[in-house]
Amino acid sequence: MKIILVGASGTIGKAVDAELSARHEIVRVGRSSGDVRVDMADPASVARLYAQTGPFDALVSTAGNVHFGPLEQFTPELFEVGLRDKLMGQVNLVMQGLEHIRDGGSFTLTSGLLNEDPIRQGLSAAMANGGLEGFVRGAAIELPRGLRINIVSPTVLEESLPAYGPFFRGTKAVPASEVALGYAKSVEGAQTGRVYRIGWSRDA
Amino acid sequence: MKIILVGASGTIGKAVDAELSARHEIVRVGRSSGDVRVDMADPASVARLYAQTGPFDALVSTAGNVHFGPLEQFTPELFEVGLRDKLMGQVNLVMQGLEHIRDGGSFTLTSGLLNEDPIRQGLSAAMANGGLEGFVRGAAIELPRGLRINIVSPTVLEESLPAYGPFFRGTKAVPASEVALGYAKSVEGAQTGRVYRIGWSRDA
Ligand SMILES: NC(=O)c1ccc[n+]([C@@H]2O[C@H](COP(=O)([O-])OP(=O)(O)OC[C@H]3O[C@@H](n4cnc5c(N)ncnc54)[C@H](OP(=O)(O)O)[C@@H]3O)[C@@H](O)[C@H]2O)c1
Ligand SMILES: NC(=O)c1ccc[n+]([C@@H]2O[C@H](COP(=O)([O-])OP(=O)(O)OC[C@H]3O[C@@H](n4cnc5c(N)ncnc54)[C@H](OP(=O)(O)O)[C@@H]3O)[C@@H](O)[C@H]2O)c1
Repeated sequence: MKIILVGASGTIGKAVDAELSARHEIVRVGRSSGDVRVDMADPASVARLYAQTGPFDALVSTAGNVHFGPLEQFTPELFEVGLRDKLMGQVNLVMQGLEHIRDGGSFTLTSGLLNEDPIRQGLSAAMANGGLEGFVRGAAIELPRGLRINIVSPTVLEESLPAYGPFFRGTKAVPASEVALGYAKSVEGAQTGRVYRIGWSRDA
Repeated sequence: MKIILVGASGTIGKAVDAELSARHEIVRVGRSSGDVRVDMADPASVARLYAQTGPFDALVSTAGNVHFGPLEQFTPELFEVGLRDKLMGQVNLVMQGLEHIRDGGSFTLTSGLLNEDPIRQGLSAAMANGGLEGFVRGAAIELPRGLRINIVSPTVLEESLPAYGPFFRGTKAVPASEVALGYAKSVEGAQTGRVYRIGWSRDA
């Protein structure tokens, strides 16, 4: 398969690349690195991405920025970062990707546990994650041509604990290689409309 | 309690009014009707709302517009309707309400089942609902002064079947009076960070 991996240089993206590149052709994409560059928050930039990649079999996004900060300091502008980048950025990749993806192809997005298992300062991440999961469940039942869509919702990564550990005390971390399995299941399996929770459960 | 009810003239809002008005003072708010008017999608309009209402004990929102339409016809602009109105409109009510709500007060928002139990054309509703639920769970753990926040997620209302029935075939409907109980539980109970699912279960 030809797989477009947006966020390839990131902590999760590198692990997804390692998991999938032995079996598939990977087009590595980032905002400031990669075979092709895109700012997924900008619909015009997403159009240029697909003009460069051409037809493909799977789009994986492991990208998405949100503002982290205390609730009382949030402004409409700070919420906008997460809405434009992590939420609508990934939605842009899917909506425009529909014109270029081959029959039976798949989209795999990334959310995270914070909409179900919140932390301090994670308000905007929780909003973006919840919005993405709703989008994925809604899109799955309307996609044409046998197309599929899933989302991976990882717990905090072991590799990210040096940076984020203080915000996630008491949260079980998993290695990026385990998170990468969710993307393989989505791309190489046959399910659709699923939220793959890696390293946590909403029943906990 | 002094309760601000945004969406008071609506199908859900009228039932919430009937449930709560015997026990509480209700300030009825709508976009084109009510004691006070607001367009919650506009932060400046929300500021004017609270300048008029003054301090209060509970804010209930039963308002929120999204665009309904087939996935393949969605544009960034059509997604924006739901992001600006149902999602950020209710977020605006909470964030600005923080400056006016009394200690121990509560916010109660409205989502709906579509982020977990999707229907055709409901893509943007699913996104807004998921975002709102993430926001509520995230906010609940950061609110100061004993403030609380919950969200009611109703199934389709019996009263709305004449309008929406064809989109909800096979979905159990409930009367608005039963949906109103979720708002009473949120406002008059002591829980926070909860999604009150009325008439459906995500385990179904
Ligand atoms: N790390 C964790 O523990 C964890 C846990 C749960 C969920 N998540 C979520 O997973 C996602 C990725 O996390 P990560 O830790 O792997 O991030 P990361 O290491 O910071 O990597 C981010 C990647 O996304 C790319 N990118 C960023 N903004 C972009 C944009 N607007 N358009 C296109 N590409 C963009 C970056 O490209 P360049 O490098 O070229 O700029 C980079 O390749 C985030 O949304 C995060 O919230 C992370
Ligand atoms: N009805 C259902 O079966 C059902 C089921 C699940 C979820 N929901 C959700 O519940 C919410 C309310 O549904 P409903 O059927 O009760 O709606 P509705 O009958 O159309 O009533 C909407 C109410 O919200 C007000 N409103 C609309 N936009 C507003 C804005 N931007 N700022 C302030 N007020 C605004 C309206 O005011 P004016 O009348 O003054 O214009 C009206 O009072 C919606 O978000 C809907 O998605 C509904």
